[in-house]
Amino acid sequence: MHKTVYLDNNATTSVAPEVRDVMTPFFNDFYGNPSSMHFFGGRIAKCVERSREEVARFLNAEPDEIIFTSCATESDNAAIFSAAEKYGKSLKIITTQVEHPAVLQCVEYLKEKGYNTVKIGVDGFGRLDIDSLEQELKTPGPKFVSVMWANNETGTVFPIAQIAALCKEHGAIFHTDAVQMAGKGVIDVKKVPVDMLAISGHKFHAPKGVGALYVRKGVEFNSFMKGGHQERGRRAGTENVPYIVGMAKACELCRVNMEEENDTIGALRDALQDGILKSCPDVRVNGDVENRLCNTLNVSFEYIEGEAIAYRLSDLGIAISTGSACASGSLEPSHVIRAMGVPFTAVHGSVRFSFSRYNTSADVDYVLKELPGVIANLRELSPFGPGKEFL
Amino acid sequence: MHKTVYLDNNATTSVAPEVRDVMTPFFNDFYGNPSSMHFFGGRIAKCVERSREEVARFLNAEPDEIIFTSCATESDNAAIFSAAEKYGKSLKIITTQVEHPAVLQCVEYLKEKGYNTVKIGVDGFGRLDIDSLEQELKTPGPKFVSVMWANNETGTVFPIAQIAALCKEHGAIFHTDAVQMAGKGVIDVKKVPVDMLAISGHKFHAPKGVGALYVRKGVEFNSFMKGGHQERGRRAGTENVPYIVGMAKACELCRVNMEEENDTIGALRDALQDGILKSCPDVRVNGDVENRLCNTLNVSFEYIEGEAIAYRLSDLGIAISTGSACASGSLEPSHVIRAMGVPFTAVHGSVRFSFSRYNTSADVDYVLKELPGVIANLRELSPFGPGKEFL
Repeated sequence: MHKTVYLDNNATTSVAPEVRDVMTPFFNDFYGNPSSMHFFGGRIAKCVERSREEVARFLNAEPDEIIFTSCATESDNAAIFSAAEKYGKSLKIITTQVEHPAVLQCVEYLKEKGYNTVKIGVDGFGRLDIDSLEQELKTPGPKFVSVMWANNETGTVFPIAQIAALCKEHGAIFHTDAVQMAGKGVIDVKKVPVDMLAISGHKFHAPKGVGALYVRKGVEFNSFMKGGHQERGRRAGTENVPYIVGMAKACELCRVNMEEENDTIGALRDALQDGILKSCPDVRVNGDVENRLCNTLNVSFEYIEGEAIAYRLSDLGIAISTGSACASGSLEPSHVIRAMGVPFTAVHGSVRFSFSRYNTSADVDYVLKELPGVIANLRELSPFGPGKEFL
Repeated sequence: MHKTVYLDNNATTSVAPEVRDVMTPFFNDFYGNPSSMHFFGGRIAKCVERSREEVARFLNAEPDEIIFTSCATESDNAAIFSAAEKYGKSLKIITTQVEHPAVLQCVEYLKEKGYNTVKIGVDGFGRLDIDSLEQELKTPGPKFVSVMWANNETGTVFPIAQIAALCKEHGAIFHTDAVQMAGKGVIDVKKVPVDMLAISGHKFHAPKGVGALYVRKGVEFNSFMKGGHQERGRRAGTENVPYIVGMAKACELCRVNMEEENDTIGALRDALQDGILKSCPDVRVNGDVENRLCNTLNVSFEYIEGEAIAYRLSDLGIAISTGSACASGSLEPSHVIRAMGVPFTAVHGSVRFSFSRYNTSADVDYVLKELPGVIANLRELSPFGPGKEFL
């Protein structure tokens, strides 16, 4: 049996033991419905409200600006469709070529319905074309902008403060998918004038199946899921109390420990990057290394397939990915890597390593012990490469 | 400290210990993303598929007819908006006056958007006006019908087989909110020709925050939440693996034990009903006692307020409700009780007792010991009642 090294934390993370422990009593003991008027519901409602305060603190928001959802996909859908509903087809929707499918698919859907939609491109380092964004913002009429804070595949961090300021200058509603930023960098909605912001618990050690949408006070919001009066009429459905309490704990852990942990995580990521660059020829780092999440490393190994690398490493107990889990199952190269204009010989060979607080230097050592052999072997088998006839 | 008697199981239930136990390993140990291609995701994907088989078995459906959702509110929204999208405003939407808010609010929303919507009424026993339904089905054009299987407030069970057959006869798409039926009676979609059916885990001892939508093979379905390819493109968002596995276990427990358990539950409910009728004057049982969920008892105590009864009992450690938790917070009398034409003197005094497998005869004894005194005391304080000036 091999060692297990999990380096796919941008896909999902393990639930922190502290998070699991705070959730447990809410399954069998404190299981009341927060909407119930009796003692057994009322005390649960208080736990939900304390959790809302903690999540708000994490974002430097006010508690009543937080709507609990079932995931960031729901949060993104809710944000986009809320704006689409308010303005109808007079709304211009601006997003980027490198968004998560949870945003892109909503925008595609609205495009098919006749909305005017625009996708801003990125350069070879994955940096957003801010000039194009500004040009698109200059047209008259209502505008909605959805730009992710940090890219899930490359870790590239967009200048959200600058983008938010531009949106405000031009009167656009601004939503950011901050799923990959949460827990990896400071999110402060008092400093950055976003109107809406989505986070997902399972990217920072809460379980899969809970998220939040921040909606700035005064920003009109139309509920996505209709029914009961929960979340002050903004999200129907009985609250997922254990996970809400768990996500709040995960927020608290990040708020308290993030700065220190991220130094460690960044050092591990850098050690892996240095080791790969030293031990493997024909490799390139994808993304904006100057503005990058501390935990993410996306590299392209030329002439070979990322899927093959990931499968070989999987057999050795190392979990990495070739792109977004939400886009997996397709044999197409990643839309993010393609948008960056990565050369043909490298576009198929991109893989992502993503760290969490639970990784250690032993994990890095193990990858660096196994990876060079895997790469060399795959290249021997590849029909492509310097001096090979197919190239 | 009082004994705690939880009799609000139609609002939510405790998580079964067996369910909690199967979920636990998925938080910290088997936490991979089912969409990931590596070993750490692949084995999780298999657990999700085994869970889908178990949920399908519970409904006598096929696994690929099951879509996992975050709750029944989402399931209901998805069903209704899917049909609304397919047909646009040519669709006639038929529902009932006594549906859950998760259905009613969607229908109200579509009515505001210009859809033709109809709400069928019920009689004094909460029985659906089938003749009216049939008349409404006779109009030409596409039709969508959403009728709950069993009512959450009174426990009244609608003749869903008959309604589904009528819908098929008239070419209508038929969705049923089966939230209160799941675990309390047999659901067999091979025998009952429903097109779509919603269930909620937390009503049968799975946690709050997971549900399913059954969509019959061949019925067109447009996804409600857009993004990743999860659930075969029908529901985007990373799967809530622990709760999906948990809901499957809860389904299995119900499938295996339900018949026997429901006999016991029904006997407890009947004992409470008999005891109340014997010990409290001016009380009426609401709903169709001939066709009623085994676990539900809705009674109106004349001349007093249901809220007052529930608060007094809450102080004594007894958790009951005055109607749907999803409609609580409003001082309006229940829309279900009003639709039944319950007399003025009784409409405000309705309360619901709802049992689960974890209730005992000691619970019934405790309620019967405390309730008559509470009722008598509230009636003394009430300005209403026989011989009092305000009546």
